[in-house]
Amino acid sequence: MANKSREELVGLGVTMEENFSEWYNELVQKAGLAEYAPIGGCMIIKPFAYSIWENIVRWFDTRIKETGVQNAYFPLFIPESFFQREAEHFEGFTPEVAWIEKRDDSEERFALRPTSETIIYDAYSKWIRSWRDLPLRMNQWCNIVRWECKATRLFLRTREFLWQEGHTVHASEKEAADEAKLRAEQYRELMETQLAVPVLMGKKSRSETFAGALYTLTLEAFMPDGKALQMGTSHHLGQHFAKVFKIKYRDKDKEEKYAWQTSWGISTRLIGSVVMTHGDDKGLILPPRIAPVQVIIVPIYKTENMKTVLAEANKVKKELSDFSVEVDERDECSPGWKFNEWEMKGVPLRIEIGPRDIENKQVMGVRRDTGEKMPIRRKLMVNKVRSLMEEIQLNLFEKAKERLQSSMVTAKDYEELKKHIKEKKFVKAHWCGEESCEEAIKENTSATVRLIESDDKRGKCVHCKHPSKHLVYFAKAY
Amino acid sequence: MANKSREELVGLGVTMEENFSEWYNELVQKAGLAEYAPIGGCMIIKPFAYSIWENIVRWFDTRIKETGVQNAYFPLFIPESFFQREAEHFEGFTPEVAWIEKRDDSEERFALRPTSETIIYDAYSKWIRSWRDLPLRMNQWCNIVRWECKATRLFLRTREFLWQEGHTVHASEKEAADEAKLRAEQYRELMETQLAVPVLMGKKSRSETFAGALYTLTLEAFMPDGKALQMGTSHHLGQHFAKVFKIKYRDKDKEEKYAWQTSWGISTRLIGSVVMTHGDDKGLILPPRIAPVQVIIVPIYKTENMKTVLAEANKVKKELSDFSVEVDERDECSPGWKFNEWEMKGVPLRIEIGPRDIENKQVMGVRRDTGEKMPIRRKLMVNKVRSLMEEIQLNLFEKAKERLQSSMVTAKDYEELKKHIKEKKFVKAHWCGEESCEEAIKENTSATVRLIESDDKRGKCVHCKHPSKHLVYFAKAY
Repeated sequence: MANKSREELVGLGVTMEENFSEWYNELVQKAGLAEYAPIGGCMIIKPFAYSIWENIVRWFDTRIKETGVQNAYFPLFIPESFFQREAEHFEGFTPEVAWIEKRDDSEERFALRPTSETIIYDAYSKWIRSWRDLPLRMNQWCNIVRWECKATRLFLRTREFLWQEGHTVHASEKEAADEAKLRAEQYRELMETQLAVPVLMGKKSRSETFAGALYTLTLEAFMPDGKALQMGTSHHLGQHFAKVFKIKYRDKDKEEKYAWQTSWGISTRLIGSVVMTHGDDKGLILPPRIAPVQVIIVPIYKTENMKTVLAEANKVKKELSDFSVEVDERDECSPGWKFNEWEMKGVPLRIEIGPRDIENKQVMGVRRDTGEKMPIRRKLMVNKVRSLMEEIQLNLFEKAKERLQSSMVTAKDYEELKKHIKEKKFVKAHWCGEESCEEAIKENTSATVRLIESDDKRGKCVHCKHPSKHLVYFAKAY
Repeated sequence: MANKSREELVGLGVTMEENFSEWYNELVQKAGLAEYAPIGGCMIIKPFAYSIWENIVRWFDTRIKETGVQNAYFPLFIPESFFQREAEHFEGFTPEVAWIEKRDDSEERFALRPTSETIIYDAYSKWIRSWRDLPLRMNQWCNIVRWECKATRLFLRTREFLWQEGHTVHASEKEAADEAKLRAEQYRELMETQLAVPVLMGKKSRSETFAGALYTLTLEAFMPDGKALQMGTSHHLGQHFAKVFKIKYRDKDKEEKYAWQTSWGISTRLIGSVVMTHGDDKGLILPPRIAPVQVIIVPIYKTENMKTVLAEANKVKKELSDFSVEVDERDECSPGWKFNEWEMKGVPLRIEIGPRDIENKQVMGVRRDTGEKMPIRRKLMVNKVRSLMEEIQLNLFEKAKERLQSSMVTAKDYEELKKHIKEKKFVKAHWCGEESCEEAIKENTSATVRLIESDDKRGKCVHCKHPSKHLVYFAKAY
């Protein structure tokens, strides 16, 4: 609490309707999530947002450890020669790479990691000898630097961000495919059950595939402003990097073989998806499972009964120790001010306690998601709060899911596609698979292939009318 | 397990006695803790060591959160102008600062953080307005870059390492002093109760004080090769940075005042202290509280009873689920090979299970710290393992404490000081407080003032024989 500035506490100057992008920017800052750093395009992640990130990390870290992944830490620096070993990968990242100044000319040039495939796979090539060393699964939680030249947005696109990157090595193509799928499924579970953000999962088109991968599985969410947001990706790397970095193993049949690999990542961008998906004109709405504060208790008192009410508020806090609870004891702020502030910060449940509530052996509960106000009997409070947490979590997911579904439409022809994109829809259509059509559609509508839903060929390309190869989703994207 | 290379598994080629520095280097790599990266002076922290770091992080993170600290994340990049605002601090760090290449000349030059006071305090100056905003306590877990020109050593001195840095702001000098003390005490508790590394705590001399601080509290351990290791520091920053970065608050009396600050940090260097303090010629010895694997079960079987023994080993693992336990099921390695490998990795307790143990309803326990071998009755196993973990933890600490105490000697005059330093002791002596004496002693003996024990003035400076200002410890240092 100590670190809010006074400016944070006034309401939003713009509604979602009026200007979504400004609403987002203002909300992120006024809710005390993040702010721009004095370095262009970089952000300061403030404690309230960092705590959401810690909740995401804890959940996902537990999952990957249960499924055979070990954490490690590789250097921030990548020798230029490592990048150059892999031309496709190098070209994919080189415009955004930041380099450190050489101390003298004899030194090699070092990049700050925009992703760590090369530095990690160089190590893997030394560590892996036999089929017994496989599968190898490592992950690191770290900072990433991509010197973006596009406009930056807090959490969504900044020059430095936090992420995890998993890197696995397998003996067969199938095992790598299963791994890539498993991690994508774990991402989906994280997004849907924890962040309450529904996602679609599928392969990326060639042009949006990770530089160097066989294919990329993507998780795509749809924001209220009609743009898709890429939430995470899981890459089947095939043997591409294995061949470049000589990751070979002696198989049971004594033959030396190239290994198969995957890599997968999610980042602090996820926090942005939560803000956009659930927020409203009063501020954030946080899903209880990732909320740093799940219940805020606001005592309502006058000077003469202040002591009694505060004592009771702290008693209630103790009873609710299964949850993350705070009592807002600040004497310098009115209850109304406090209500606004905690609504801005998206705390799922507010509990008000006044002298009459104490008399009546109840508290007053107010849901952030619906605004519903309800007296809660003290005797039933713990279980009531527990069920409210579940209800709010589910309600947020269902509302978001409904919006996603009502945004999904099918375009039979190009006119329909253009119309739907203009109407900010997530548009399903057939595609011949040719980059020329993808490119033309992008130029014309700003929409790109977000994901391939299936290889359903029973149709014609929405653009060229040639036989379809895939059923895909088009949308504008962040 | 998957990621060990075959080379790791052979024993150490050198003893501690023969060449401590080589022993350390070999051990760190053969135990699978870390290795040098293909970037000079950088390391790869492998899963086994990263897991120790996670245990350290979990313990300390819980402690600081219980005592009012919130985590946040500030940018990796620091504008050159920020450094220059504070000349003393800038000069302290500038030789080791790495800079990123400018994209164009209009841009400012950015450093990679060697520590984050400046970037964090710039933000604090915007966030803090009133006495109500104080105390403010934030911490970040992050990577740090110091382009060392001295010889690097895995964990002890590398160009990138992981650490936490806490940064607090207070309304009074005393509050800041109490904070600096509290964090130093928490460090001491971490080091002594978790790492089992005894430390001395005290102020640094002026020449070793953090650039910009009023004073620095240091935690110093003493390594078996007769060198002190700085384990962590906690700085009372006074109002130095507050004045430079304009961190002011309106006090209750309506006056604007400069704030008082502290900063404090510990790093992955701690892992190096554990290796050196407890290791022996067979490898690591890990204190149970930070060991990634506390108990290793080695099944001993022949082909005909393999199934039974493995089943039993896994049953034992289940019974010991309160601990971090693994069964080494590898069929391609002999039990003897496994013993050596897990001794190299320092696992506190080995449990062997063979057909006869099953018959006798027992397992065979072997302590890594003493080598003691003991049958353990299955019925009593869980509690026996629990008490063994405590005994091993305590024994490691007590052994290290004895060594520290037997290394501490007092020098009455300069001849004694020189003699003791040559004998690799931690030497207590009187000092006049003059830098000229400190400097002369350093030139002559390579020993520096590691910490000030007290302001005991009842003596004469060990060098110049003028009246003493402090009783201090001299030693060579890492």
